[in-house]
Amino acid sequence: MRVDLNADVGESFGAYAIGADVALMRSITSASIAAGFHGGDPSVLRETIRMARQCGVAIGAHPGFPDLVGFGRREMRVTPREAEDFVLYQVAAVAGVAAAEGARLHHVKPHGALYNMAAHDSALAAAIAKGVAAIDRSLILYGLPNSELLKAGRDAGLKVAAEGFADRAYEPNGSLAVRSRPGSVINDPESVVARAICLVKDHSMFAVDGTALILHIDTICVHGDTPGADELAARLRAGLESAGVAVRAISEP
Amino acid sequence: MRVDLNADVGESFGAYAIGADVALMRSITSASIAAGFHGGDPSVLRETIRMARQCGVAIGAHPGFPDLVGFGRREMRVTPREAEDFVLYQVAAVAGVAAAEGARLHHVKPHGALYNMAAHDSALAAAIAKGVAAIDRSLILYGLPNSELLKAGRDAGLKVAAEGFADRAYEPNGSLAVRSRPGSVINDPESVVARAICLVKDHSMFAVDGTALILHIDTICVHGDTPGADELAARLRAGLESAGVAVRAISEP
Amino acid sequence: MRVDLNADVGESFGAYAIGADVALMRSITSASIAAGFHGGDPSVLRETIRMARQCGVAIGAHPGFPDLVGFGRREMRVTPREAEDFVLYQVAAVAGVAAAEGARLHHVKPHGALYNMAAHDSALAAAIAKGVAAIDRSLILYGLPNSELLKAGRDAGLKVAAEGFADRAYEPNGSLAVRSRPGSVINDPESVVARAICLVKDHSMFAVDGTALILHIDTICVHGDTPGADELAARLRAGLESAGVAVRAISEP
Amino acid sequence: MRVDLNADVGESFGAYAIGADVALMRSITSASIAAGFHGGDPSVLRETIRMARQCGVAIGAHPGFPDLVGFGRREMRVTPREAEDFVLYQVAAVAGVAAAEGARLHHVKPHGALYNMAAHDSALAAAIAKGVAAIDRSLILYGLPNSELLKAGRDAGLKVAAEGFADRAYEPNGSLAVRSRPGSVINDPESVVARAICLVKDHSMFAVDGTALILHIDTICVHGDTPGADELAARLRAGLESAGVAVRAISEP
Repeated sequence: MRVDLNADVGESFGAYAIGADVALMRSITSASIAAGFHGGDPSVLRETIRMARQCGVAIGAHPGFPDLVGFGRREMRVTPREAEDFVLYQVAAVAGVAAAEGARLHHVKPHGALYNMAAHDSALAAAIAKGVAAIDRSLILYGLPNSELLKAGRDAGLKVAAEGFADRAYEPNGSLAVRSRPGSVINDPESVVARAICLVKDHSMFAVDGTALILHIDTICVHGDTPGADELAARLRAGLESAGVAVRAISEP
Repeated sequence: MRVDLNADVGESFGAYAIGADVALMRSITSASIAAGFHGGDPSVLRETIRMARQCGVAIGAHPGFPDLVGFGRREMRVTPREAEDFVLYQVAAVAGVAAAEGARLHHVKPHGALYNMAAHDSALAAAIAKGVAAIDRSLILYGLPNSELLKAGRDAGLKVAAEGFADRAYEPNGSLAVRSRPGSVINDPESVVARAICLVKDHSMFAVDGTALILHIDTICVHGDTPGADELAARLRAGLESAGVAVRAISEP
Repeated sequence: MRVDLNADVGESFGAYAIGADVALMRSITSASIAAGFHGGDPSVLRETIRMARQCGVAIGAHPGFPDLVGFGRREMRVTPREAEDFVLYQVAAVAGVAAAEGARLHHVKPHGALYNMAAHDSALAAAIAKGVAAIDRSLILYGLPNSELLKAGRDAGLKVAAEGFADRAYEPNGSLAVRSRPGSVINDPESVVARAICLVKDHSMFAVDGTALILHIDTICVHGDTPGADELAARLRAGLESAGVAVRAISEP
Repeated sequence: MRVDLNADVGESFGAYAIGADVALMRSITSASIAAGFHGGDPSVLRETIRMARQCGVAIGAHPGFPDLVGFGRREMRVTPREAEDFVLYQVAAVAGVAAAEGARLHHVKPHGALYNMAAHDSALAAAIAKGVAAIDRSLILYGLPNSELLKAGRDAGLKVAAEGFADRAYEPNGSLAVRSRPGSVINDPESVVARAICLVKDHSMFAVDGTALILHIDTICVHGDTPGADELAARLRAGLESAGVAVRAISEP
């Protein structure tokens, strides 16, 4: 039994610091690094890649909508071609900077509203998958289990990884409860660890209304923007390992 | 006797069209494609790479300052590390999108104020060269003859190409006269052709005050933002070929 | 019988020119000037205000989504509070620059996707109206006839002006046919003039499927981004005046 | 004996929080609020204006270079006209949003590199002063004592306020030591308070090399981006008041 532990990092921008990247890097096994559109800048990107490499964390690109002030969390009605092109651009930038630092890109995880829209919108999902596949067909595409995004990834010849969230509430249909909904973010570390173990070992999760969901996941996301995210990540890793789950990047043997 | 004919292209942005890319592509042998910071966007970049590939034009990255409203033409006091990182990012993006389109990056030409500052500022020039070399040491760095930029490129193990301007006036020190100076842009096609032939065959150019400059150049830049740029490029190519000069990309045998 | 003739202007950005502002100013009676988010920049804004003032054209603010690369034409799921705040900011900027030039702001017309979404989304419409009213309750809010936007404007104590489009096709429900639909933009000047006269005198317009729409309008929009827009505007004005329609800004007696 | 205590606030941007605005508002008497170019966004601006109003803090505009990723701290070679226009735009926006909140703009303080360049560059200083005066001649322009900026402000008919820095080291010529220089930021609260009292009561300050400077100042700046800035501001205010200095906004009687 195994699982990857991932976090979104490298989202600081110029003088603006966000997230707990340094601390998270000690616990996670793969990092989704902002590509400069919803967050991140060229210096932050490079620094984060170096840090991930040093910590033995697998490097991913985290492309988002071109909406810095909205942090990529607002839906934008882009055309599939626009999406394909800006995903390609962002993944190309992260892959190239990673290569310059001697590292190989491991995966791609769309950010925020792009990720959520691509779970349901098959044309958008196909566009993202095409943009990723144009860079490198051996990349792993992260997305929600049973989502259009993972389906599109497989159709495009990519490997895919189903992502679970131990610190976020689920809707009965398997999507994430929106951030603005009270109780959508779970802060209690023990609950988060228990939910993670449940997800990995039993493939089960309870939705906000009590519905039992069956979710087969390959990677668990830790959010770096919640207070105490670093400690949470450490406890999550320790908790999973104590429960006999190997915590390893997707691509590791 | 040979020379490369280059133009800056792909600088349109969203609904904003600029330049005469389609027409220029028929005459030039290498294209410096905007990377998204001073101009260009992901869709324009990809479209321009496709167009260049179709026309058999060698593809270069054209990184600039992060100053869209100033079109990268305003000096910015960035640190060498900032410059290295944003050049690396931009070149990575263009190289990656080119690779996705089946093309290999041929050269890098800094844009506007970045190009001009790097002619004299050795720390900035070294930073740019390091950013380029981190991507691929076989890339060709374009710059003014005798500039700090070309020196830094050679020091970083890159190939370099000295660039001449047949349609721009020169200062006695070999730098370009600023755009705001009357007479700095030469519009008469016959003068431009004559100056180009002079540059390539005699390595000579007269500065604004009559000083005779000796300039060994490998590539001539055609500006796409002047009215009639497309015809000018066509006449320049025809004129050079009539004078027995082979017009070919730098890397071509 | 009277009507206002308006155009969206001041949408150029830095080195990027768009629209036919100078030519349009000769024919229109009110100008909606881009406020810097979807297009426009501080120098273009000031220059356009000066030009409008010189031509005796009433000055309006044209706030849009913060989406320069999408030219404000893509729907963005912003919250009502975000919309209210960025409309307030943009209208404040245009009103203040106009005041500095000795002119008083006459109206506000939301741009692109913001305009279209506000026709149907009452919460967004209310947010826009609140942002405008916070600046000055005597401002005139432009919107589609029978739209949520005009309703919200009236509720907020603003004057409103119903806008018609002589050069755009209508859907049976009175909304505009999307730009991507073939035939959505009408280029034939005679048709455009005839449709305008019909709109003003008979309050009638045929939708794409032949449905007869009843539309009471106060202002007709001329698009500056179509080729020949300047001539079209001149013919439109002449045609309306020949038909006995006074062409005057909304606020004029 | 009196002095104003000011801080730069409202520099957060979207999801990115920066500064200690809430805490500072308890101690300062005037606030320079970011206008959206180097930092700040429409919602942050409005919220900060509301907060200042509620705390009885005088409201100022804090215009900066259009360089978000550089936080307005990098010199940009803009033309005087560009500077005048973007200062006018930013001040117009802040003044208009303030008016919408029932507050009147009290002052303008250029930010970062714009502030520092305008201390020495008379053409830039004149452009800024012109942009401010075009909005309202009763505005107070903040700048370094003996700077070109204050001179230009007076020439443009504006009131001016000379600003001192109790937590920053000075060069022998009266300019601020650059941030990158070790020791340029003074963190020890007791030193900061002592320097402030010295500045206000004795008009004296020692430069980094021991040179005694004579500086007549009207306002002291507290930096919100240093850890403990809120406590520092509180101690500064208490220390000044204990020493018999009235801490009041410039415009207060």
